[in-house]
Amino acid sequence: MSLTADRARAVIAAAETKAWEIGVPVVVAVLDAGVHLKAFARMDGAPLASIDIALKKARTSALFRAPSEAVWEYCKPGAPAPGLELTNGGLAPFGGGVPLEAGGELVGAVGVSGGAVAQDLEIAKAAAAAFHFEPERA
Amino acid sequence: MSLTADRARAVIAAAETKAWEIGVPVVVAVLDAGVHLKAFARMDGAPLASIDIALKKARTSALFRAPSEAVWEYCKPGAPAPGLELTNGGLAPFGGGVPLEAGGELVGAVGVSGGAVAQDLEIAKAAAAAFHFEPERA
Amino acid sequence: MSLTADRARAVIAAAETKAWEIGVPVVVAVLDAGVHLKAFARMDGAPLASIDIALKKARTSALFRAPSEAVWEYCKPGAPAPGLELTNGGLAPFGGGVPLEAGGELVGAVGVSGGAVAQDLEIAKAAAAAFHFEPERA
Amino acid sequence: MSLTADRARAVIAAAETKAWEIGVPVVVAVLDAGVHLKAFARMDGAPLASIDIALKKARTSALFRAPSEAVWEYCKPGAPAPGLELTNGGLAPFGGGVPLEAGGELVGAVGVSGGAVAQDLEIAKAAAAAFHFEPERA
Repeated sequence: MSLTADRARAVIAAAETKAWEIGVPVVVAVLDAGVHLKAFARMDGAPLASIDIALKKARTSALFRAPSEAVWEYCKPGAPAPGLELTNGGLAPFGGGVPLEAGGELVGAVGVSGGAVAQDLEIAKAAAAAFHFEPERA
Repeated sequence: MSLTADRARAVIAAAETKAWEIGVPVVVAVLDAGVHLKAFARMDGAPLASIDIALKKARTSALFRAPSEAVWEYCKPGAPAPGLELTNGGLAPFGGGVPLEAGGELVGAVGVSGGAVAQDLEIAKAAAAAFHFEPERA
Repeated sequence: MSLTADRARAVIAAAETKAWEIGVPVVVAVLDAGVHLKAFARMDGAPLASIDIALKKARTSALFRAPSEAVWEYCKPGAPAPGLELTNGGLAPFGGGVPLEAGGELVGAVGVSGGAVAQDLEIAKAAAAAFHFEPERA
Repeated sequence: MSLTADRARAVIAAAETKAWEIGVPVVVAVLDAGVHLKAFARMDGAPLASIDIALKKARTSALFRAPSEAVWEYCKPGAPAPGLELTNGGLAPFGGGVPLEAGGELVGAVGVSGGAVAQDLEIAKAAAAAFHFEPERA
C-alpha cells in the first residue's frame, strides 16, 4: 500500500480535528516512505517556527521508522550515539513525529508542531490513527 | 487581508481541479506574504522533482511579487542582472509561480509543477483566480 | 517490484563489464525510486569529479523519471524552463542517467560518469538493460 | 598501498557477511584516504537514516584517522573541543566508523549504520579486518 493523496489529506484532516478539539493551532506535514513531502497544512495562528519543526519531526520518524522521540534514546547525554541528531540534515528527536504504517509496512510519517510537545504528540497519534483505521471501514 | 488556511485550501483545490481537467498530475505549493509555506499537496503520479520546483516557483513569485517567469527578464543573457537566479537559495524563473493578491496587496503566491511549463502556468492561474474571485461572491 | 540489493549489484556489474569492454573507468551510482542511494562503485582510475556527477545524473533521472539528458530540452537556451538545472540541489542534464523500470513502473535510476558523455550513456544503458532482462531469465 | 575497487568490494562483502550473521541489515560506506566515496551498499531493510549516518561515520574516521567514537573524547561535555562535531559538514562521533590501514598508513575508512551502535561497530571491525588480512593470505 502506498500513501495516496487521499490518505494524506485524511491524515491532515484528522490532525486538524484533534487540534481544534484541544484548542491549539499546529503545522502538519505528511511524508511518504521515501521521505518526500506529500501534503502540508499550517493552521491559522501556528508559529512560523513550526514549519521546519513539523517537517523535521516527520523526517525523523520516516528515516528511522519510529516515533521521533525514540531517536532521543540514542543521542541523549550518556547514550551511545552522541550527535546522531546532527545527521540527515538535522533531526527533531522529540515528540510529534509518528510513522504511518499499513500491513506492517512503513508507508510514510506525519509530523506535528505548534503546541506543547505532549499536545503535538496527541495530535500526531490521532492523525496516524485516522490513517490506520480508514482501510478497515472500507 | 491575510492568507488564511481556508483560502490556501481553496487555492489548492482550484489547482487540482484544473489539473484533473487537463489530465496532468502536479505539485501545488502555497506560500504566505512572508514567503513561508502555508499549504502543499502532491497529486498521485506527479514527479518527485516537482516538489522542489513548485516550492521554488512560489518562492520566486512571492519574493519578487511577480509571476515567476517575469524574473527571467532580468537574468536572461544580455539582461542587467546575470546570476540573479542564483540568489535567495536558487530561484525558478519560469512559468508556474503566480502571486496571490487582494485589494492590490500581496498576500502570498502559488507554485505549480508537474506538467509542461504552459500547463503549469495555466493551472497556477486558475488557482490564483480562485483566490481572487471567492471574496467577491461572499 | 522494488529495487533489491541483489538487483542493484547486477546493475553495477553490468556497468563495470561494459566499462571494461570500452576501456574507460567510471563511477556508477544506483538510486531507488525514492531517490536514495542503494549501491555505488568507483572503478580504479575514475576521476574524483565523477562521484558527484554520477550521483547527480542518477538523481536527475529518478526525479524526472527520464533519461538525464531529456531534462536539457526544458532548460537549454530558448527553452521554457531556464534555471531548471538549479532546482533539486543541482541537476546534471546530460547523458549518463537512465531510469530503471519494471512493469512500466519506475524502481530507480543508474548514473554513470567518467568517460565521454556518449560512453557514459552507453554504459548506463547497458547497466539498465541488465536490470530489465534479468527477471525474464528467472 | 591504495584502496582499490577490489579491496573496497571485499570490505563491503565482509561487512554484509557479519551483518547477516548477527541478523541486522545495514548500510556500508567505504571511503578512500582522500575522504571520497569508493563503494557503498544498502542492504534490504536498512533504515533510510543510515545512508547519511554510515557516510558520516566513515568521513569522521577518515578525517581524523581514528575510530569515529574516538572523536567524542574531544567534544563531549567538559572536553577541550566543544562543537568539534559541527565541523567538516557534521561529524558522527559514535561507533561504527573504522580506519582502513595498511603498513601503518591510512588508506581509507569504512562506516556502518543500521543496528545498535555496538552492532555497527562489530560489523565495521569485521569489515576492516577483511581489508587488513586479505593481503597476507596472497
